[in-house]
Amino acid sequence: MNSGADLLEQRKARAKAWFEELRDRVCARFEALEDQYDGQQADWPPGRFERSSWKRPADTGSPEGSDDAIDSGGGITSVMRGRVFEKVGVNVSTVYGRFDPAFAKQVEGAEEDPRFWASGISVVAHMQSPHVPAVHMNTRHLVTTKAWFGGGADLTPMTDAEKDTEDFHAALKDACDRHDAAWYPRYRKWCDEYFYLPHRSEPRGAGGIFYDHHDSGDWDADFSFTREVGLAFLRIYPQIVERRMHLPWTQAEREHQLIRRGRYVEFNLLYDRGTHFGLKTGGNTDAILMSLPPVVRWP
Amino acid sequence: MNSGADLLEQRKARAKAWFEELRDRVCARFEALEDQYDGQQADWPPGRFERSSWKRPADTGSPEGSDDAIDSGGGITSVMRGRVFEKVGVNVSTVYGRFDPAFAKQVEGAEEDPRFWASGISVVAHMQSPHVPAVHMNTRHLVTTKAWFGGGADLTPMTDAEKDTEDFHAALKDACDRHDAAWYPRYRKWCDEYFYLPHRSEPRGAGGIFYDHHDSGDWDADFSFTREVGLAFLRIYPQIVERRMHLPWTQAEREHQLIRRGRYVEFNLLYDRGTHFGLKTGGNTDAILMSLPPVVRWP
Repeated sequence: MNSGADLLEQRKARAKAWFEELRDRVCARFEALEDQYDGQQADWPPGRFERSSWKRPADTGSPEGSDDAIDSGGGITSVMRGRVFEKVGVNVSTVYGRFDPAFAKQVEGAEEDPRFWASGISVVAHMQSPHVPAVHMNTRHLVTTKAWFGGGADLTPMTDAEKDTEDFHAALKDACDRHDAAWYPRYRKWCDEYFYLPHRSEPRGAGGIFYDHHDSGDWDADFSFTREVGLAFLRIYPQIVERRMHLPWTQAEREHQLIRRGRYVEFNLLYDRGTHFGLKTGGNTDAILMSLPPVVRWP
Repeated sequence: MNSGADLLEQRKARAKAWFEELRDRVCARFEALEDQYDGQQADWPPGRFERSSWKRPADTGSPEGSDDAIDSGGGITSVMRGRVFEKVGVNVSTVYGRFDPAFAKQVEGAEEDPRFWASGISVVAHMQSPHVPAVHMNTRHLVTTKAWFGGGADLTPMTDAEKDTEDFHAALKDACDRHDAAWYPRYRKWCDEYFYLPHRSEPRGAGGIFYDHHDSGDWDADFSFTREVGLAFLRIYPQIVERRMHLPWTQAEREHQLIRRGRYVEFNLLYDRGTHFGLKTGGNTDAILMSLPPVVRWP
């Protein structure tokens, strides 16, 4: 192994280890919120994460495609159904192999060589209380003949939550600004454009940041940025939950929340590229659709 | 107006009148089931259909696109939320204009001339009782430089419903066999292929028939066939409802129903061509998404 290949393997290992560390820290922080809770439904037991793992099937397009024993990676899904978090999924996965030839053409750096490696973390939380915003955070590292980071975080308040939205954006802006003052406005705009439902003429939520193909030429700085996005999420979202979870809510507010969740489903199934990519390339259906809310209404 | 154009206008008027007549008959029959009901929740008031109408916006691609006053047709949505029918939508619409140039290329007979006329009826029923299958029926007449019928009906039982499925298929087979013994096997297969969720390796329901570009060369026979599909639905589905609506159900059966409804949502938003076509061509969002179930669970 030459030193270039060595460095690449070290970077993959560092990225994967970070996504797993962040998973552990997010899960621990969310379980602590379950323990702290003293509002409506406080007689329910505090939720705990349950883990299950899945293996990625071998690529049918690869020369080794017929051999089931080929290791193509997989993931671990952590799900908690609690008294604060109605349903929260934290997925980490590290998968590798060869893209399908037709698909490879659409992926940066895979046009000539379809081999890829991808690792990431994805968090989606749907809350019991309509006063606590739902949230999504995802960061990932992709390696083809090129290498880049992608991800973001966005907040979906169900009731008025101006201060929550401001604080959420401020935390992400801070993570961006440590690196480059140009990134936050660019990635905030990308988020607003991406999480939009044209058939409703509505944004999915209150925005956040969204980035992809992030490669500044300095891998360590880019990795540091991706870690900071995760840390900003880990700092600000539990603060928002803590501040709002004890507020009582009415049946009408709950109904409104269940209807707003329908928009979340519409976005994820009609438009979300990650969902379509995953479902159409043999990803793990349960892990991918973990993002769907536990109860939804279309009245 | 020459006699060819005259005949075409007569045919459009007859098709439109039929879809509206069928709408009235379906609504009346469903309201009668609400009146008859004497099972769980019989203290609730019997449901009644409520109608609302919508106008189609003028085509942006048409020469008259900038004139809001151009008549492009529209539709009437009839919705009932009852004690037997948890939510049932019956849409009729008659729309006309010019397809978007990019879209016109994909539509039979519209490649050179983008003008179109389309009329149809669509019924989707989600039931209170998990013992009563959900159902979908849709028939339509399309006119470009060609003219054809399309549609179908399919049943989605939530619990064991072997006899319901058999009877539903028998009614549709009868409608097909009056015309051509080859149609039922062909259209049943098409239905099985169409209403399939590859990411779950599951059919959406228990099948039925699905047909499109139906043009045997005999317009009167094809119109008669489309009427008979509607009449078969009008005869058999209320029979199935009547036979099962009084059975008591458990909370566990209800839960199962709400989870199965998730598959319905996944199909409609991920794969249904009609839904995508409607949402992406400025159709009426509320009318299109009337098909989504009133309450759904993804546990």
